[in-house]
Amino acid sequence: MVIVMAPEATQGDVDAIVRVVAAAGGEAFVSRGVSRTIVGLVGDIERFSTLNLRSMSGVADVIKVSTAHKLVSRDNHPERSTVRVGGVPIGPDTVTLIAGPCAVETPQQTLEAALMAKSAGATLLRGGAYKPRTSPYAFQGLGEAGLRILADVREETGLPVVTEVVDAHDVELVASYADMLQVGTRNAQNFALLQAVGSVGKPVMLKRGMNATIEEWLMAAEYIAQRGNLDIVLCERGIRTFETATRNTLDVSAVPVAQRLSHLPVIIDPSHSGGRRDLVLPLTRAAVAVGADGVIIDVHPHPEQALCDGPQALVDGDLVELARVMRELPAIVGRTPATDTLASA
Amino acid sequence: MVIVMAPEATQGDVDAIVRVVAAAGGEAFVSRGVSRTIVGLVGDIERFSTLNLRSMSGVADVIKVSTAHKLVSRDNHPERSTVRVGGVPIGPDTVTLIAGPCAVETPQQTLEAALMAKSAGATLLRGGAYKPRTSPYAFQGLGEAGLRILADVREETGLPVVTEVVDAHDVELVASYADMLQVGTRNAQNFALLQAVGSVGKPVMLKRGMNATIEEWLMAAEYIAQRGNLDIVLCERGIRTFETATRNTLDVSAVPVAQRLSHLPVIIDPSHSGGRRDLVLPLTRAAVAVGADGVIIDVHPHPEQALCDGPQALVDGDLVELARVMRELPAIVGRTPATDTLASA
Amino acid sequence: MVIVMAPEATQGDVDAIVRVVAAAGGEAFVSRGVSRTIVGLVGDIERFSTLNLRSMSGVADVIKVSTAHKLVSRDNHPERSTVRVGGVPIGPDTVTLIAGPCAVETPQQTLEAALMAKSAGATLLRGGAYKPRTSPYAFQGLGEAGLRILADVREETGLPVVTEVVDAHDVELVASYADMLQVGTRNAQNFALLQAVGSVGKPVMLKRGMNATIEEWLMAAEYIAQRGNLDIVLCERGIRTFETATRNTLDVSAVPVAQRLSHLPVIIDPSHSGGRRDLVLPLTRAAVAVGADGVIIDVHPHPEQALCDGPQALVDGDLVELARVMRELPAIVGRTPATDTLASA
Amino acid sequence: MVIVMAPEATQGDVDAIVRVVAAAGGEAFVSRGVSRTIVGLVGDIERFSTLNLRSMSGVADVIKVSTAHKLVSRDNHPERSTVRVGGVPIGPDTVTLIAGPCAVETPQQTLEAALMAKSAGATLLRGGAYKPRTSPYAFQGLGEAGLRILADVREETGLPVVTEVVDAHDVELVASYADMLQVGTRNAQNFALLQAVGSVGKPVMLKRGMNATIEEWLMAAEYIAQRGNLDIVLCERGIRTFETATRNTLDVSAVPVAQRLSHLPVIIDPSHSGGRRDLVLPLTRAAVAVGADGVIIDVHPHPEQALCDGPQALVDGDLVELARVMRELPAIVGRTPATDTLASA
Repeated sequence: MVIVMAPEATQGDVDAIVRVVAAAGGEAFVSRGVSRTIVGLVGDIERFSTLNLRSMSGVADVIKVSTAHKLVSRDNHPERSTVRVGGVPIGPDTVTLIAGPCAVETPQQTLEAALMAKSAGATLLRGGAYKPRTSPYAFQGLGEAGLRILADVREETGLPVVTEVVDAHDVELVASYADMLQVGTRNAQNFALLQAVGSVGKPVMLKRGMNATIEEWLMAAEYIAQRGNLDIVLCERGIRTFETATRNTLDVSAVPVAQRLSHLPVIIDPSHSGGRRDLVLPLTRAAVAVGADGVIIDVHPHPEQALCDGPQALVDGDLVELARVMRELPAIVGRTPATDTLASA
Repeated sequence: MVIVMAPEATQGDVDAIVRVVAAAGGEAFVSRGVSRTIVGLVGDIERFSTLNLRSMSGVADVIKVSTAHKLVSRDNHPERSTVRVGGVPIGPDTVTLIAGPCAVETPQQTLEAALMAKSAGATLLRGGAYKPRTSPYAFQGLGEAGLRILADVREETGLPVVTEVVDAHDVELVASYADMLQVGTRNAQNFALLQAVGSVGKPVMLKRGMNATIEEWLMAAEYIAQRGNLDIVLCERGIRTFETATRNTLDVSAVPVAQRLSHLPVIIDPSHSGGRRDLVLPLTRAAVAVGADGVIIDVHPHPEQALCDGPQALVDGDLVELARVMRELPAIVGRTPATDTLASA
Repeated sequence: MVIVMAPEATQGDVDAIVRVVAAAGGEAFVSRGVSRTIVGLVGDIERFSTLNLRSMSGVADVIKVSTAHKLVSRDNHPERSTVRVGGVPIGPDTVTLIAGPCAVETPQQTLEAALMAKSAGATLLRGGAYKPRTSPYAFQGLGEAGLRILADVREETGLPVVTEVVDAHDVELVASYADMLQVGTRNAQNFALLQAVGSVGKPVMLKRGMNATIEEWLMAAEYIAQRGNLDIVLCERGIRTFETATRNTLDVSAVPVAQRLSHLPVIIDPSHSGGRRDLVLPLTRAAVAVGADGVIIDVHPHPEQALCDGPQALVDGDLVELARVMRELPAIVGRTPATDTLASA
Repeated sequence: MVIVMAPEATQGDVDAIVRVVAAAGGEAFVSRGVSRTIVGLVGDIERFSTLNLRSMSGVADVIKVSTAHKLVSRDNHPERSTVRVGGVPIGPDTVTLIAGPCAVETPQQTLEAALMAKSAGATLLRGGAYKPRTSPYAFQGLGEAGLRILADVREETGLPVVTEVVDAHDVELVASYADMLQVGTRNAQNFALLQAVGSVGKPVMLKRGMNATIEEWLMAAEYIAQRGNLDIVLCERGIRTFETATRNTLDVSAVPVAQRLSHLPVIIDPSHSGGRRDLVLPLTRAAVAVGADGVIIDVHPHPEQALCDGPQALVDGDLVELARVMRELPAIVGRTPATDTLASA
């Protein structure tokens, strides 16, 4: 932590800071410049954060330089982690394809979508039974009936299931059906939910808040980790910007940045970021090429009948190209398609 | 709803849309231009939204023109509403000051802050017992003990209490102590929480999500309203932009815009938007001048010891000026300070 | 300037930095923390900026803490400045109203708009002869013919003229007619233009770039100041954000922030930020209340015929209210309407 | 163009619009809904834009649905274009690597950088002689001396030269040395400059403004095209968002979106968007994979001595990997490296 003094700060102001920091068990190093004095603090940053140094006399700015996300940080865990979901790896050696319908609607539609997904190389099935929707008048998901459909389709296809949970008090129920819990972008700072998914013993996919900095995203992961669960996969899904041609702006740079700061796997959702079917394949290629540990993609047998986000679902005709990308592109970044890992297991 | 056809759309594409819309009980009006054809839809917009028109052949864009927030919209309720909290009005005739500590820490600190607030003209007491914090290592609030302190201070000062709830399953507990429930910016799309506060029969203050459009903010209010609760006060508290000199960018324009679209009262939080004490008074003046129905402000007897957001709390020396602003400025916008309303009641 | 070392930085990395800084005539103070080492630099920051310290081995981050805008900074000039435009003051004691048509179209329209402006309390006339337009097919302004019209209307009304210049090589021509040169938001980093207006000896109004941080805005002003012209007025006109209900988001907080960092006057443009006539009066009140040193407003005798930005121009019926605001509100912030200053002069 | 009427609009309001549109030579189709009436306009959109329909009584919103960028639009030119720079193609069949130093500093440094670039597969040399810098105290480039160095290095290496022009009145001079003129992000709405580069008969690389929508970027290109120059290459270089971990946020989605709207080639600058050397290679891979027609990259023989943007320049050790990417990745997207095109020519 570094304190920048105002030009008008007095010697007494600086002395007061040194005293307060010392009283908190830390050390303060004073560097006097021509127009500014800087005080560097060494010690327990959490403790310093409670001191309200910014409101002390003569203080112009307080700059944090240590990371507060200890458990998910790569500082203390330099090796990148692999998270296993029902045996399927997501991590630095593979590129994992997760695919399925945005929302579970019927057994038939879910099974068809799962078979489409599998044919394109997916090793995990996505599908929503609880849907957070901006409008209260939109389709909100089938709830537990949807979870049962997912479990049946898993039985039939062998694909472990990733599904979203939107309420802390549904976590145990959802976890009893799912292989991986998803926390969506609108709940990226729903701390009660983060703590609940951290306590239930299943892997978690944490989407980045559409307005979250990478730092805040890692802090949200830290909430989960702090409850004893380090099986977390980060998922970039686009951030909110001024551009309206796409639903959100996919921040591909976030993948290498987050991988450098954290040991957790990082995947990309090219379906929800763009919100347009014609962008899904180009963004999937970009995701693999930038070094993502996987992608999660909407597919639907009949998107024109979809109850949720039909406009962005891939259809049959796209799957051949998706399969080709998932087969050929990983080698360019020194990886194996996740399908091969399973075959060899 | 308006459908914009792509330049390459065929007559068959247009006919298909007309058929689909008719099958859904609507009417489609086709306008053929030199380079583009436009189809205007008339009928049930919710129904049209499920048709996935955007994925039909030849469709370039689908533009929504009706509002989907029916209960909170001013279209169907032209008079602006007044919400009463423990008898205190928030609405178009008054400017209400809500003040108190960001977090409840001790009975003594809360009482002192409440008395400071009252001396500045506050008629409602704010104070947090449950605090959503970006870091899991930061102070998370006193919980029910904090609610009891707030109830005691209400007893002593006569100020009704506004306090935040962060988990759907705490709503009943918090509502048993509070006069108004606050939903914070990080929970602005936590739909489970919105529905829970809509069901408990207490007025709600709904902060705008820091990344929410005004449209989404009203949709969040619609979630509450749909459960039968129209005692909702909207609170603008700054949005996330590229500017880093302030914590968030206070969007004062949102006040007249939201008041035009919705009949609900709209207030401003000048403390959390700027995150800096030196901005609170200027932004409070701007809030009243732009036409906000109230302001909510952090005060603290000893901000340098505050466990939460001390740097932005007003202190004793600022209260005289705050009181002057709250007394003199409302007349400029044709309003009464809320204190006068109570006196005359 | 502060250098934050990476966790894996070696003693040799730190020593190398100390050496490089010493060779550049500076001093480096090393503070060693538990997980991080920080190096504070004291000396010539411009010199340090050329050292590429960020690319040295072991460096995680470089944080600038001194301001590089020396001439416009309040650090070296604590008194706030007043800029005089044809005798009219813009500064800390007054609230100046600048008004007129967005674009000069005809002598008649310009004169009518100027008389409207004057009746509302304006002491300076705005009007564009050169218009930067997003589309090459939109009206681009009358050029020198427009400047002549402005000069004629100044003759008739006594109002000094503020007008935009969009090309460095028109600066002398525009300056020969205008009392104040305006640099628009799209040219906020057109450095050739900034240097040209800095050299011509007329006051300059510098609009904030719609994507400029306050820091970059002050740097743009520094470009003008560096050519010897300190008669600069900063104008906040809204920044680009994700919100689409308004054309841009007016950042009222920028006024007190910029006034604290710089001695230059700061005004607000409520017409272009909102882009909607119904927002102009509320935002004007907010501007005066937050402490702006003036406002600049579009008026038009017949906005439905305007060739540029008609939808946001105030019309006759709004002027009575505008005049009331400009007369009554300044006292609330301890100021005089600029009209009174002239009367007493 | 579509006009959305307010709920309170009268029949007279609608009739007035129909009359005004007819008087302007257009046709208006009225669609009456339950709560809203919509009027679709057919005819000359530029003409309609001057009518100020938004300020007419009863109008709630005016929505533009036709594109105003005629010359660069793919609507009227469905084939994607190839631009040739000194014989080197940039277009849909190839992936072109443009590389070189951010700023020209010395003949020796420029030659070394050009040879590095060539060894990695570059077929065009970039290098800045005129540098737009945020601070007036930063290195501003060598000017014409820099142009001469570039011309000498072209002689020696055979690489055509791409270089930036920042002032309309330098365009002829720069064009006399350069094979392609670059317009930078800060000048993306400097219309005088856009028109000047459109008139001089050399290919132009137009960087996206860091705050420009894709629509505005195409409009800037239209300014160039309108002067008779269609040899324009669009360059995405990151947009400004709330994220601060990277200098800007690279918007890879902009590539397929812009390629769909316009026939012009679209390339990516992975160096300036991230501003960090460790991101350049991952973002380059993402650029090729998403379908960019080329990339432009900073290289420097001694980045720690660079006078401009040293922290993002690739160094010797990175070039082997860059060369591999440029050789292997284009085939994945059905393209040829530009080097092969030249060999076969």
